This record gives sequence, C-alpha cells and structure tokens, in this order.
Amino acid sequence: MGLERFSFNQATAKFWPLPEVVAGCAVAGVPGIGLWREPVRDYGLARTAALVREAGLTVTSLCRGGFFGADDWLDDNRAAIDEAAELGAPAVVLVCGGLAGRSLEPARARVAAGLEALAPYALDAGVRLAIEPMHPMFCADRSVVATLGAALDLAAPFPPEAVGITVDTYHVWWDERVWELIAAAAGRIACFQLADWILPLPADVLVGRGLPGTGHIEFPRFLTAVAATGYTGPIEVEVFNAELWSRPGQEILNDTIAAYLALT
Amino acid sequence: MGLERFSFNQATAKFWPLPEVVAGCAVAGVPGIGLWREPVRDYGLARTAALVREAGLTVTSLCRGGFFGADDWLDDNRAAIDEAAELGAPAVVLVCGGLAGRSLEPARARVAAGLEALAPYALDAGVRLAIEPMHPMFCADRSVVATLGAALDLAAPFPPEAVGITVDTYHVWWDERVWELIAAAAGRIACFQLADWILPLPADVLVGRGLPGTGHIEFPRFLTAVAATGYTGPIEVEVFNAELWSRPGQEILNDTIAAYLALT
Repeated sequence: MGLERFSFNQATAKFWPLPEVVAGCAVAGVPGIGLWREPVRDYGLARTAALVREAGLTVTSLCRGGFFGADDWLDDNRAAIDEAAELGAPAVVLVCGGLAGRSLEPARARVAAGLEALAPYALDAGVRLAIEPMHPMFCADRSVVATLGAALDLAAPFPPEAVGITVDTYHVWWDERVWELIAAAAGRIACFQLADWILPLPADVLVGRGLPGTGHIEFPRFLTAVAATGYTGPIEVEVFNAELWSRPGQEILNDTIAAYLALT
Repeated sequence: MGLERFSFNQATAKFWPLPEVVAGCAVAGVPGIGLWREPVRDYGLARTAALVREAGLTVTSLCRGGFFGADDWLDDNRAAIDEAAELGAPAVVLVCGGLAGRSLEPARARVAAGLEALAPYALDAGVRLAIEPMHPMFCADRSVVATLGAALDLAAPFPPEAVGITVDTYHVWWDERVWELIAAAAGRIACFQLADWILPLPADVLVGRGLPGTGHIEFPRFLTAVAATGYTGPIEVEVFNAELWSRPGQEILNDTIAAYLALT
C-alpha cells in the first residue's frame, strides 16, 4: 500500500500551524488531509480552502459537528456543514455529545432528532454526516453513541449519502461484534480513521492514543474488513497523544507516514 | 427497600481489616458480604469462614478468579472455587484477563477453553463461575470480555448452575443493548453489583468509581431490569475509589448503606 489513500488528520500534529501542515503534506506526497474547524477558522475558511487547493490536497473530513446537547447545536452543525462544503470535504465527523443533563435513552433520542433536522441540509450541501461511535469511556461526557451498532441504528432512517458513520479503530476495536458491524456498515462508511490503543491510559484519557502499530489493535484485519464493504475512500490517521504533540510537526508527519506504510 | 438483600463488598473499604468489616456489617444489620481472596488468605481461610458464620453473615461472592492468560490459571481458579465453597459463597467472580500476548479472538477463545476446563469442577463444588464483563476501557489489560453479550455467549454452552454472569452497573451501563441483554440473562445472573460512573476519570481509571447515586447511572432501571429476570439474590455495592478508601472503614460502610437505601 502506498500513500494513495492516506490522509493526515491535522489533530495528529495539533500544534503545527495549518499552512505548515499543508505544505508538509504536499511535499511528502500525502494526498489527503483531515481538518478541524477551530484551526480552519483561525486561518480563515476561504483562505484554508484556497491553501489546500493550491497545494493539491483533498480535504477528506472536517471535525467536528455533533454535541446535540449544546444550546446552539442546530446553527453550529449547519455551519459545520457549510464549512465542509466550502472546503470540499465529503464528510463532517459527528461527536454526538454526552448525557448533558439527560439519562441515556433521552440523550440518544436527542441525537436522532438532531440527525433528522440536519440530514436534508447535509444532503443539499453534498456533505455527509459521519456519526462517530466513541469508546464507551466517553459515553457520559462526549458521545452517547458508544458502538458501531448504535451508530448504524441512528443512521438507518436516512439515505447513506446524507448520514454515514465514522469507523475509528481506537473507539471500536474491543467490540466482539465489530466485524459483523463493519460488514453491516457497507455503504455507510463516510470516514475511516486509524489510531492504536496503548497502555497505560494517561491521566487525561482523551490524549492517550498511539500511532498505528504501537498498541494492541489488529490493523490488517480492520483494513480487510473495511475494504470488504466496498469502501475505497481515504484512510486517515488521527492520533491524540500528548507526547506526540510535543514534537515538531514534520517529525510527527514523518512518523505517521511510516506507521501507515508499515501496516502493509 | 430495606437491607434484606444488601451485601457490602469488602473492596469498597479496601483497607479496613477483615474482622472489623465483618463486625461492622453485623452491627449495622448488613446480612451479606462480598469477600476478596487476598484479605481472606491473609486472615486465614478457615478462620474467615468461622468469623463470618459466627457473625451471622452470608458471603455473597468471592472475588476473584479468571485471568486465563496467566500460567497458573487452572490451579488458581480451582483454588478460588475451593475457597468459595469453604466460605459458603455461591459464586466466584471471574475477571477473565486481557490480551496477554494474544489478539482479541484467540484471547476470547482462551476464556472459553478455561470455562470448559473449570465448569465441571465448579458444579461439583456447588459454586458458580460468574463471568464479569468489564468496561471496554479494560479490554486490553483486564478483561477481553467487554459486554454482557459476550459474557452470555461464553456462558451459553454450560448449565446455568455452573456458569453465570456478573452484572456490575459500572461496567455495562453505557451499552445500548443493556436492557435486552439483562433480559436475556434470566437464570444466569450469579452476582449483581452496583457502582456509579463518575467524572472526571482519575489518573488510574481502575479506582474512579462512585457510590450509587453520585454519578450518571440509572440505578432504579437496573434494579427493575434485573428483578424482571426473576433474580432475587443479593445486591452488592462494590466501589473502587481512592478517596473513599482513604476514609475510616465505618464511615465508608455507613455511606454505602445510605447510598443503597437511597436507591428506593
């Protein structure tokens, strides 16, 4: 496997300035980049769109929408869809939000209602909503959608071109149903992200992920399972890791590329 | 709800000496106690059995067997069963072990093989093996059995009086299938434990649990769902919490009883 399908999610080098990330990717022959709304906003939306276009990069996803428990969820998600459309990103990754004052089922119902409100808007914009099931350790505070099964159930009422899912290995690897659920996700995979499960978990569990190959996840099996659904889209590496973030951006990119290439 | 079905798991007051825990429970009118092998061994097995008998307490479970990736797993699990029998404990809670050098499916197959080796021994001893699905954040290092669904699948080949499951609210609350899986567990629930999910997770996620009612879990719904299976056995409170552990044992017991009584 070469770099044809590789995408570098900019959160992997969180503190690397956007123009440097883009330039670094272009020089390294990386075709795709996953962007985050905050650095895009800081650099300027139109300016970012021009920058990546001129660098010959494809924006593979925009993080993130969701958080359906927030007061401004509707406006904010519409803005995320608009931004993705302007960047040419095919998908907005949805981190659906935690309990936010509700118990689990009402909080999940809130996500379903949010998707219903947003799906037509996303369809009009040509941007897919990519529900990201997050590891159950984030269920209370970040995402009440904790499994691929739950994400697929939420997506089911909508056309796949409006609502898809994100498969992030870090969040779903432990699930004994993961292979059947990936098979069931055929046509719904809007974003495919790689990060490894490493131990020990750090004090802030959010930033304890590893580059693929440094932990416990079976990546070849994930690549095979996702390919078997017919998915031929980008493969992002997105790693939140405090130690990694402390290093120079170019070094992070180099190591991420090496980790990706070593998977085959 | 009175204390008729309440059991105090001694791990909730980890540093309270065994004879004091037993005396404290007896004085407080607590009928049941969940014991751990290490403090029992330190105090002496026969001596502990006599102590709890004389105090009029019932041992509701013994923690723990499992860890099927360990070299001495067979001898150690047989010893746990023997110890439970001597204590009159109806169940040995199984923490099934993490990956321990294998990938996920072979590690799960190792658990299945371990159960097959142990089930007749447990049946002979009149002690149930109580497979405990643990929260997926422990999948790599403590239990490859991460959901009630996986636990039930592992238990299915065996008679319910040999192999049951543990329902611990802390480990399973996030699962969108939890209510259907509890219903499917009818006749298999060998141990029912309560602990709450509190935030933030501490640096050591193992010891970040809360007394029931201090976090995000819907206990009334769990009590109702488990009762609906026909389960009429003990209800243990088992909370690993570093701050709680730092307090005097009697105070921990008092607060645990109050938390339990407040659930109704």
